[in-house]
Amino acid sequence: MFAKETYVQRRAVLKKAVGHGVLLFLGNDEQGLNYEDNTFRYRQDSSFLYYFGLSFAGLNALIDIDEDREIIFGDELSIDYIVWMGTQPTLHEKAAAVGITETRPAAQLTEYLHKAVQQGRTIHYLPPYRAEHKLKLMDWLGVPPAHQEGSVSFIRAIVAQRNVKTDEEIAEIERACDITADMHIAATRFIRPGMYEYEVVAEMNHVAESHNCELSFATIATINGQTLHNHYHGNRIDEGQLFLIDAGAELPSGYCGDMSSTIPVSKTFTPRQRAVYEIQNAMHLESVKALRPGIPYMDVYDLSARVMVDGLKELGLMKGNTEDAVRECAHALFYPHGLGHMMGLDVHDMENLGEVWVGYDGQPKSTQFGRKSQRLAIPLRPGFVHTVEPGIYFIPELIDLWRSQGKFTDFINYDKVEEYRHFGGIRNEENYLITETGARRLGKKIPLTPDEVEALR
Amino acid sequence: MFAKETYVQRRAVLKKAVGHGVLLFLGNDEQGLNYEDNTFRYRQDSSFLYYFGLSFAGLNALIDIDEDREIIFGDELSIDYIVWMGTQPTLHEKAAAVGITETRPAAQLTEYLHKAVQQGRTIHYLPPYRAEHKLKLMDWLGVPPAHQEGSVSFIRAIVAQRNVKTDEEIAEIERACDITADMHIAATRFIRPGMYEYEVVAEMNHVAESHNCELSFATIATINGQTLHNHYHGNRIDEGQLFLIDAGAELPSGYCGDMSSTIPVSKTFTPRQRAVYEIQNAMHLESVKALRPGIPYMDVYDLSARVMVDGLKELGLMKGNTEDAVRECAHALFYPHGLGHMMGLDVHDMENLGEVWVGYDGQPKSTQFGRKSQRLAIPLRPGFVHTVEPGIYFIPELIDLWRSQGKFTDFINYDKVEEYRHFGGIRNEENYLITETGARRLGKKIPLTPDEVEALR
Repeated sequence: MFAKETYVQRRAVLKKAVGHGVLLFLGNDEQGLNYEDNTFRYRQDSSFLYYFGLSFAGLNALIDIDEDREIIFGDELSIDYIVWMGTQPTLHEKAAAVGITETRPAAQLTEYLHKAVQQGRTIHYLPPYRAEHKLKLMDWLGVPPAHQEGSVSFIRAIVAQRNVKTDEEIAEIERACDITADMHIAATRFIRPGMYEYEVVAEMNHVAESHNCELSFATIATINGQTLHNHYHGNRIDEGQLFLIDAGAELPSGYCGDMSSTIPVSKTFTPRQRAVYEIQNAMHLESVKALRPGIPYMDVYDLSARVMVDGLKELGLMKGNTEDAVRECAHALFYPHGLGHMMGLDVHDMENLGEVWVGYDGQPKSTQFGRKSQRLAIPLRPGFVHTVEPGIYFIPELIDLWRSQGKFTDFINYDKVEEYRHFGGIRNEENYLITETGARRLGKKIPLTPDEVEALR
Repeated sequence: MFAKETYVQRRAVLKKAVGHGVLLFLGNDEQGLNYEDNTFRYRQDSSFLYYFGLSFAGLNALIDIDEDREIIFGDELSIDYIVWMGTQPTLHEKAAAVGITETRPAAQLTEYLHKAVQQGRTIHYLPPYRAEHKLKLMDWLGVPPAHQEGSVSFIRAIVAQRNVKTDEEIAEIERACDITADMHIAATRFIRPGMYEYEVVAEMNHVAESHNCELSFATIATINGQTLHNHYHGNRIDEGQLFLIDAGAELPSGYCGDMSSTIPVSKTFTPRQRAVYEIQNAMHLESVKALRPGIPYMDVYDLSARVMVDGLKELGLMKGNTEDAVRECAHALFYPHGLGHMMGLDVHDMENLGEVWVGYDGQPKSTQFGRKSQRLAIPLRPGFVHTVEPGIYFIPELIDLWRSQGKFTDFINYDKVEEYRHFGGIRNEENYLITETGARRLGKKIPLTPDEVEALR
């Protein structure tokens, strides 16, 4: 948690930006795994964390702009709770730590909201992403789940603030990135043929947990790197395979890191693996070189795709005009995801508020397969923190589908592609801060070039 | 997953027990942590696992007893899903693996249920424990969350089956217990003054994860053992403290273990720590000795409490008639939880169905502080698997409250108790199977006596 002035200041900016109405913040509750009291790890809502800093279940808050009030709603602990779960500061103490003087019992929130509605005032709330939010909004405001869309002015004001990271946030993110890098370095050293994927996961989690971190997201650690978000960890790791890792640490404050590595299970890459890796590496290095304030990140995505197409043309996998191939998204057969996304209190920062606001400033997203997965398109600005993570994959199901549809035969040599059918996938990922003059990598360096990776094996 | 005959047989028994109507099983979905697609680890509902064996999100199932049909509702994967999340068997293949031939698209479930309701047939469902369940039951059956109580005949039939573990279940539970024991042994060896609690947590998780296990529940690993379910891991561990661990592994099949250890941070116990530990150990050993078919587990709880009261009387902490103290629950100042609970696919097995059905056969539970937390009261039967976990704690908040209320002054020497104010807590826990003639510990032995613990330090 930062100093209380940080939260006071953040709320002041937000109030001014939205202008009027009541801003409702749903704090997250505990969630039952297989029964109510056996809970998942607790995670507070990120906007609640950003404006109210408190990572405790059972809280909700509002900023009544019209009446200039900030109130946290919650209940004091019962003796049963204290015996089972331990003591906590009082609600008043919690609130005071983030510069809030008004607290009320949880049950009074509904009445407060009803009164504001009766007065014809607007209740701004954010789009729900948990079933618990939907139940709350239904109970409190009478809005059925299908109509809980969230307030655009509230969303835009939050995005404007949270998209630009302050120095104290950058310091936290960098700390998370350092631990994330250690996870990747440990795994790169650890992997040996004959192991199971879950052993590598255990090794990385151990690094994160030894630093009192959670994971920013479910770890990807797989011999099937062609599956972009593969969460299965039951396979045996064998000689000759590529092992793809995408994993990150989340600090107790909620700030997180997110990096990817691709590692040859044998100590060195095969010539074919190295050839594709060199192309992916060029995509990465060219993208990083292009980072600077003012450049639309969609342009950097296009650049990374063109580098790949040029490279794959040399290998005989693609053909035709590079610019055309990228414009038409033929490259997405091999590179079906985006180049990167904002990162902060969420690993895909504010994804719950809508990518169209976070990464597109309200402009419509592409519907092209591949390009539609680019989460960040707008011109980069100093204070943006985002990932750079190009990838090259051979996805048998997608190859078969496109080939059967005769898709992009002007750009893709399907016969050649067949030779790479079981290649797997390569992705590498770093985290960057946009500065006044360019960009700066956050966190320790992880091995990136094929030589750097082999040196650590 | 077991052979399909296991699931066919389980469903056949269930159908016969309930007799008529439609049995609705809500499969669990993915749950968003800080946005919808950043999910917690996936956990299928345990009753769904028990009768349908499939650990995949997006499935629901029903057994239509009247029409003798078993149907799994779900959707086939889209190409986008396959690209991002990987392939899975088809719905038909998944269903066939558990002996089900009829599958339907997810959207057809509501219609099926509405038709059954129109025919005047009963839809049996289980009490919801996740907000997602409440939304589903509201959408599908029009029952508002406040009235979603669950079907007693359905609950009782499930409890009757799941309470008695079969050999194949016992083998799974024992495997989970072995890994659980390894977690405790690793931690007992690992803890040193100057470490932080989360480092011990990381060490234990590493053992579980290296075996492809999840945790059965959020690990308790704390210098504040007096807080029964303490999930905070940020404290430094210092010489002279007691360190209390309560943790267990969950296999991919969902079966789990649950053990506790109490470890002196210094290599040996202080005389005072050892004196209290000896009492806790006597509670444990006497309880285990009493385990046999036919004995109500509430009687074993009473026995463990009497052993403690006798011991604390010798230390001068309690006084008066032991039987009276236990009947009135004066012992609960030091022992505010139960002696144990059923264990299986849930660490508190079927807690979502209601302890009153699982552990009380429908009889009302006590409302006494302490005794009300005994989760299992009924006579033990062969095939029951449960924990034995007596404890002794000094909880400052509870001591202060009771003293201020003048509570049980006939039984408690509060002045003497003050001397132990910062003692902490001691709990040890093993898992037992009730056999035809007595009971058998499940899993490897963890250190239990003070000498055994010190030998591992």
